[in-house]
Amino acid sequence: MLQENSFMQGKQSIGLGTPVYIRQSASIVGKKEGQGPLGKLFDVIGEDDMFGGSCWEEAESTLQKEAVWLVLQKAGITIDEVRYLFAGDLLGQSIASSFGLSTYGTALFGLYGACSTSALSLCLGSICVAGGFADQVLCVTSSHFASAEKEFRFPLDYGNQRPLSASWTVTGSGAFLLAKKREKGTRAMITGLTPGRIVDFGIKDSMNMGACMAPAAADTIDRHLKDFGRTPEYYDKIITGDLGSVGQQALIDLLREKNTDISQLHTDCGIEIYDSGTQDTHAGGSGCGCAATVLSAYILKNLEEKIWKRVLFVPTGALLSKTSFNEGKSVPGIAHGVVLEAV
Amino acid sequence: MLQENSFMQGKQSIGLGTPVYIRQSASIVGKKEGQGPLGKLFDVIGEDDMFGGSCWEEAESTLQKEAVWLVLQKAGITIDEVRYLFAGDLLGQSIASSFGLSTYGTALFGLYGACSTSALSLCLGSICVAGGFADQVLCVTSSHFASAEKEFRFPLDYGNQRPLSASWTVTGSGAFLLAKKREKGTRAMITGLTPGRIVDFGIKDSMNMGACMAPAAADTIDRHLKDFGRTPEYYDKIITGDLGSVGQQALIDLLREKNTDISQLHTDCGIEIYDSGTQDTHAGGSGCGCAATVLSAYILKNLEEKIWKRVLFVPTGALLSKTSFNEGKSVPGIAHGVVLEAV
Repeated sequence: MLQENSFMQGKQSIGLGTPVYIRQSASIVGKKEGQGPLGKLFDVIGEDDMFGGSCWEEAESTLQKEAVWLVLQKAGITIDEVRYLFAGDLLGQSIASSFGLSTYGTALFGLYGACSTSALSLCLGSICVAGGFADQVLCVTSSHFASAEKEFRFPLDYGNQRPLSASWTVTGSGAFLLAKKREKGTRAMITGLTPGRIVDFGIKDSMNMGACMAPAAADTIDRHLKDFGRTPEYYDKIITGDLGSVGQQALIDLLREKNTDISQLHTDCGIEIYDSGTQDTHAGGSGCGCAATVLSAYILKNLEEKIWKRVLFVPTGALLSKTSFNEGKSVPGIAHGVVLEAV
Repeated sequence: MLQENSFMQGKQSIGLGTPVYIRQSASIVGKKEGQGPLGKLFDVIGEDDMFGGSCWEEAESTLQKEAVWLVLQKAGITIDEVRYLFAGDLLGQSIASSFGLSTYGTALFGLYGACSTSALSLCLGSICVAGGFADQVLCVTSSHFASAEKEFRFPLDYGNQRPLSASWTVTGSGAFLLAKKREKGTRAMITGLTPGRIVDFGIKDSMNMGACMAPAAADTIDRHLKDFGRTPEYYDKIITGDLGSVGQQALIDLLREKNTDISQLHTDCGIEIYDSGTQDTHAGGSGCGCAATVLSAYILKNLEEKIWKRVLFVPTGALLSKTSFNEGKSVPGIAHGVVLEAV
């Protein structure tokens, strides 16, 4: 039996006394990601970044479709056993999700949280399962280097130069099956959530997304620790989504100003996914697919193997569009926190 | 006390034995909407559709910001009493929401459901409140005629001709304060939800959105009635979001094929908001702001006055972008159902 209001924790967090289980997950990535340090850990690596599609958007839709198919196969269930989908992506009007997921015929909650979407979907999926609104839900998100460049920056053929603070959008999709019950093979459990708020330091440089998003990550981590009355050392790792090397430094500095030191505990999915020295990815990886694929392939694996027992997973999103950028607006950030624990 | 799994109803619906209350709501619209049949019912009518902004996107952000401010004023509370925001809009990367809501400093769940966003936000907001994850949340969405034309169609200056099946995007925003407790002045209650799935009949005409979305509305209404074991007559009204006159006929025909007749019960926010005979709006109003402002100003009023006791509110969304349209893709639809009852 659930206690009334038992979930509310502090100002904006949610404590899940009865955890939500990540029963299974799947990752599919592009060729470049397959050549990176985590290459051997992904479920599927595409040889051709078109993934059988006729345009980049179709390729990205295929990534989501395949990631969902993979997670169903790995869990040994059919889509009919999934009550709801929680999905979103970076493209205008989230078309990667709409066209990728329509064939499944499952009720869909469409989300937009920029590169924080993996955590946004895990937060809402967990709320849905923990509250008793579904036994099993699927959370899925994606990004694609070429569709993102087209959506936010320049045509690929233009061959623009990228500053060292720029990140490289990950081609990939991650899907997560959340369940009320712990089944055999369950990968990890979710025991807490800290939905984030928009934080805008007025930075306008869309080629330095790490700096734009670091204040939001700092705000969510600080809020999380206060809401749960924890110190950073409660966690074996605090892992952001795609701050990259520039954003990592900004995050560590911003939290030091609040007397919180995460320098020994922090890593970032965008830093882990590429070898920036040899892969020309500058500050690191980014995109919804960055945090999602690294969570599935690397973070959940380390939790399964008990290398880590508790991880605070904090994907970050930059809330810009090409229109807002062209109109001279700043790039506000948002970050959502998810507490992952070994089962 | 909540029973485990007490919320799941049929294949994809949610029953709220203990209702979620719409404690207060607010609507703000543009000049044209103010001149329509519902003009006197809106809280604020702008004299200038720029709403003090320097571009259309800024105008739309202002709509959301003001709608939230209005609902807080009407409820006599501060933003600190709101635990979470659920928001989205039609623009790429939902910038109307990001820039409109950042000043409130409240944790945000960003959504994308095209013109179904008002129902999407009410569904997730209700789940959050009913499940005990928050005492009060705010759901807000918007659209703006000029920012939507820029985002999806032609520059206004181009003066393109519009076929009679086209709809007119509503300039407006609606905000809804959902609460666990029934306070004095509570406007209505939410007792059931039917999150919808994507339905794609392969229609590619973005100037006939009603036809694109009607199959999704029919699917959700049919599913809703089956999940709850109800007939259409259980409701005093079944109200879709922005099917307009063309979509209305398609919806009634599609449901007749399933032996369900809603012809005497159905209306559509897009039909109600304009006088198509004198306002040159062709098939009717559309946009996230259409269903949201009509819900706040008209539907909730009729529930308050007990003119209607039970309403099935089914906003519809067309899941296209200019990119998907230009790439020759179809326009899939989605519709989410919300059961509204007089308190």
